[in-house]
Amino acid sequence: MDMERLLQDVADDVRQSLGTGKVADYIPALAQVPPNQFGLAIACLDGRHASVGDADQPFSIQSISKVFTLAMVLSGRGPLVWDRVGREPSGTPFNSIVQLEHESGVPRNPLINAGAIVVTDHLIGGSSADDAVDRLVAFMRARSGSNSIGVDQQVARSESETGSRNRSLAHFMASFSNLRNPVETVLSAYFRQCALALSCRQLAQAGLFLANKGRDPQTDEMVVAPDQCRRINAVMMTCGHYDGSGDFAFRVGFPGKSGVGGGILAIVPGEASIAVWSPRLNRSGTSWTGSQALERLAARTGWSVFG
Amino acid sequence: MDMERLLQDVADDVRQSLGTGKVADYIPALAQVPPNQFGLAIACLDGRHASVGDADQPFSIQSISKVFTLAMVLSGRGPLVWDRVGREPSGTPFNSIVQLEHESGVPRNPLINAGAIVVTDHLIGGSSADDAVDRLVAFMRARSGSNSIGVDQQVARSESETGSRNRSLAHFMASFSNLRNPVETVLSAYFRQCALALSCRQLAQAGLFLANKGRDPQTDEMVVAPDQCRRINAVMMTCGHYDGSGDFAFRVGFPGKSGVGGGILAIVPGEASIAVWSPRLNRSGTSWTGSQALERLAARTGWSVFG
Amino acid sequence: MDMERLLQDVADDVRQSLGTGKVADYIPALAQVPPNQFGLAIACLDGRHASVGDADQPFSIQSISKVFTLAMVLSGRGPLVWDRVGREPSGTPFNSIVQLEHESGVPRNPLINAGAIVVTDHLIGGSSADDAVDRLVAFMRARSGSNSIGVDQQVARSESETGSRNRSLAHFMASFSNLRNPVETVLSAYFRQCALALSCRQLAQAGLFLANKGRDPQTDEMVVAPDQCRRINAVMMTCGHYDGSGDFAFRVGFPGKSGVGGGILAIVPGEASIAVWSPRLNRSGTSWTGSQALERLAARTGWSVFG
Amino acid sequence: MDMERLLQDVADDVRQSLGTGKVADYIPALAQVPPNQFGLAIACLDGRHASVGDADQPFSIQSISKVFTLAMVLSGRGPLVWDRVGREPSGTPFNSIVQLEHESGVPRNPLINAGAIVVTDHLIGGSSADDAVDRLVAFMRARSGSNSIGVDQQVARSESETGSRNRSLAHFMASFSNLRNPVETVLSAYFRQCALALSCRQLAQAGLFLANKGRDPQTDEMVVAPDQCRRINAVMMTCGHYDGSGDFAFRVGFPGKSGVGGGILAIVPGEASIAVWSPRLNRSGTSWTGSQALERLAARTGWSVFG
Repeated sequence: MDMERLLQDVADDVRQSLGTGKVADYIPALAQVPPNQFGLAIACLDGRHASVGDADQPFSIQSISKVFTLAMVLSGRGPLVWDRVGREPSGTPFNSIVQLEHESGVPRNPLINAGAIVVTDHLIGGSSADDAVDRLVAFMRARSGSNSIGVDQQVARSESETGSRNRSLAHFMASFSNLRNPVETVLSAYFRQCALALSCRQLAQAGLFLANKGRDPQTDEMVVAPDQCRRINAVMMTCGHYDGSGDFAFRVGFPGKSGVGGGILAIVPGEASIAVWSPRLNRSGTSWTGSQALERLAARTGWSVFG
Repeated sequence: MDMERLLQDVADDVRQSLGTGKVADYIPALAQVPPNQFGLAIACLDGRHASVGDADQPFSIQSISKVFTLAMVLSGRGPLVWDRVGREPSGTPFNSIVQLEHESGVPRNPLINAGAIVVTDHLIGGSSADDAVDRLVAFMRARSGSNSIGVDQQVARSESETGSRNRSLAHFMASFSNLRNPVETVLSAYFRQCALALSCRQLAQAGLFLANKGRDPQTDEMVVAPDQCRRINAVMMTCGHYDGSGDFAFRVGFPGKSGVGGGILAIVPGEASIAVWSPRLNRSGTSWTGSQALERLAARTGWSVFG
Repeated sequence: MDMERLLQDVADDVRQSLGTGKVADYIPALAQVPPNQFGLAIACLDGRHASVGDADQPFSIQSISKVFTLAMVLSGRGPLVWDRVGREPSGTPFNSIVQLEHESGVPRNPLINAGAIVVTDHLIGGSSADDAVDRLVAFMRARSGSNSIGVDQQVARSESETGSRNRSLAHFMASFSNLRNPVETVLSAYFRQCALALSCRQLAQAGLFLANKGRDPQTDEMVVAPDQCRRINAVMMTCGHYDGSGDFAFRVGFPGKSGVGGGILAIVPGEASIAVWSPRLNRSGTSWTGSQALERLAARTGWSVFG
Repeated sequence: MDMERLLQDVADDVRQSLGTGKVADYIPALAQVPPNQFGLAIACLDGRHASVGDADQPFSIQSISKVFTLAMVLSGRGPLVWDRVGREPSGTPFNSIVQLEHESGVPRNPLINAGAIVVTDHLIGGSSADDAVDRLVAFMRARSGSNSIGVDQQVARSESETGSRNRSLAHFMASFSNLRNPVETVLSAYFRQCALALSCRQLAQAGLFLANKGRDPQTDEMVVAPDQCRRINAVMMTCGHYDGSGDFAFRVGFPGKSGVGGGILAIVPGEASIAVWSPRLNRSGTSWTGSQALERLAARTGWSVFG
């Protein structure tokens, strides 16, 4: 398979859908992104790489960061995090608080906002928000092989200024003693992790260890143990797209995680890591054209974990 | 891999958990089943078969039947069924009606009771309940290669007599015009499909087409198209165990569907179909020892769709 | 106070709102009622009566019947009914099933559909649906002093034919063993009680015992004990208008019960019983012009239980 | 009626229930209050006063303060507050956030925590938290005729330190732009209003204007207009005891507002204002013995707004 050609064909397939969907407008920094951009990049386990469109344009990865903080936590003293967060699909939107009330402050899974805030609190541990962010940035640079990766401070500030809903979630969990650090400490790290800026090429490379049983093929480092890697992929499959996770599994057929910045990271175990980006979103907060592209790519390659 | 030995090892692994969990007691016929039975069978795509324990004892497959009626519907004029039922995890127990009210009578997915009732209504189409059940029994006999398979009429009667919750779900959907046949017609078929009795050996064989891109390896018949097969597996992965689907994906790593009779059908795409049965259930209504056995089998084989 | 003049003034006050709101269309028999009718009648404890507009036109009292079946049950072995139904506002629409699931099949109060179905089951007791309806019709004739009152059989049939939602509620409660008679027996009585047809004049007279500490001033019969009478009024105050009960208490200031036929019965303890009817409804299912009229009548008279 | 004798009889009636219920333990300052205290005071419109038990012991009035801030807001530019808060019973506990999510950040009524936070924000207006608290303290002193009334600063600090749930509610509403002042400004006033300490005698006196169509009989000041007074009583009747409001109306029969400090203020329009206090609470957070005492007092006097 010619990867460049594949991605070009996929891009052609979805070009006409570029005007569909709405850019996230809940923070000014996201609302200003030109909406019709599209980038797609793939990193294969056999060493091949390809990209098309705006694949070198850094974008705010937003919730995709949740996968990487989860991996960092699971590589260390992580299993304990499962006492504080579940791994069930929530059946509700990304920022819902209803489930938290029904289940006593324990978020359904680590890929909704409330769950990711708990994971970030776990990552901070006894250190500081700055330290946790430094470790995350170092991790992302190591995984992507690119030292230019960093936090978009303007987006991070904007997140914090408009972060009432996330503050509400965090204080709610604090009321059930499910945060160990002060709310503002945790959110300070959380808002910055959401504001990480990567290009599709960098993101596809950064996710490759998840397609490779936890080992980073470039550094040969075992980032997470094979069984933890499987579990991260499992959680992405069942919970990666909020209230649209079932539909993504149904239409695309491999694990993925979307962010409201319009990016999606998708993992084909044993094959490849794929990053796609296009800012317009569907009703569940997943990139419209991005998910179309992954569906087309799955159809063209036959890749699916489901046979 | 010696399959007989593998299953024997798995059975040894889980023997001590046989006393844990509670047998479903909502219908007398299920409550009377001796609780400490355990059967496990595997059918591989390469033609190998193995079984251990009570693998020839027929049991009530209950909700596992939902997978087969879905396959029957998707093999025909099925795609239209997706206008009437979603494919998202519900985040609620198997017989919840709350979601139905919030979403105007459209069930979340075809593997919860409400969704399966819609699929059964679709299967009946313009025919009769008897006809639909006849077709289902014929389908199960063809898939399992066993003409002894049938409906346990005592269980079916018992289901109907204690079926108030399912009647409530059906009338609720009828109030939103999401049933085409009369409620009692649909339930008459639904209660009988739940009362299908198969042994682990029969069930493992019956599910094999789902591991084989939709083609039955014994009859070489294309039961469902490859993309429909993938979709059935995807729905099993995200929705197969009600409010425990995420945990099953996390711990076992391949698609499955459980029934309150204590059976579980699990599919390893490209490899095998597995049936396990043990009547005691966990809180989500999935066989306690059965899911333990699948987790052990996954660990021993390394089988996982997640890498 | 000249009662005729009062009612005429109120009618003038609200005339312009007669085109606002929507007639209930969930059963054909209700949808066909000419929408711009308006009747208002008052029966005072001092013996005065007055009426205006279409006050002699019989209409379907629908949920207003819930007050009378509750009174009948509380006049007998009734207190036991409080084991089977609560007395809290539900915070949800009249036909919601969500609350029932969260509270194990015990309806929030006797003035929502689910609660009224339980009260009807209680009223039937060990007799039959026909017997219960006969007793209710006799009760309404005695209270109103009018032998012409009866069940509109066409409406009752229409209720039953379109009664999927109520069937769902009833089967749901049956699944929690909160019905003693078969579902169809209970609904047979329930649909007929909703189809009782009274004019405003008849209805105002029928409710007068509730303004008089439980004693019917015409027959001098103690219909319910004084403390039961207070409790019925209390339940009407907190639960009489579904999800609009608080607003009704706020704007009108005395107990009332509305029906989707457009009628409202309102009780001014120690003073009067008032019936108003106009078919167009607000969002909560209460007569738009009817509640306006009661608000105007309260303002003109100064009647309020709140000082 | 001899008021002293009446209260003494009521106190005798309920003495044996003093050990029932649980003291609020969510803030240390409340948990330390000796649990078996009981005070009861009445202020009648005809000028009579009476009290029994620990009626001169100041206690934390907690949510009872919500009635007074609402009255202050409604006496000024208040009607506008109804754009920001509803007046329907919530059907949920006092600190629930579920309803807020379903209704876009508009609290159900001003007597649950979320609603009272909005009212406090309205009271602050363009001034400061300190100014609002000063005005409230002045108001309470004027109403009770007692200059000793003030904020228990230890309780206020304790409220703030353990106020995660209220912070969550406030940030949630802020995310829907339903707060005009910064969250911590509003909460600073809110926590202090909850920490107001009054004795039963002071509280009964302070509430007397609500039994008198809005006019303070001691100062002859029109505190709120008569129609606003009725509306406050109406909201107390339907929403004054969270998820136990219907039961309170049913058993007691006049408007009241409870606080988790164990106090209840009850209003008999045209007759009297009653304050009762006993720290042990029922499941809804209302004083166990306090509500028993009000039920007995209603039975002994025959007072009821329901006839």
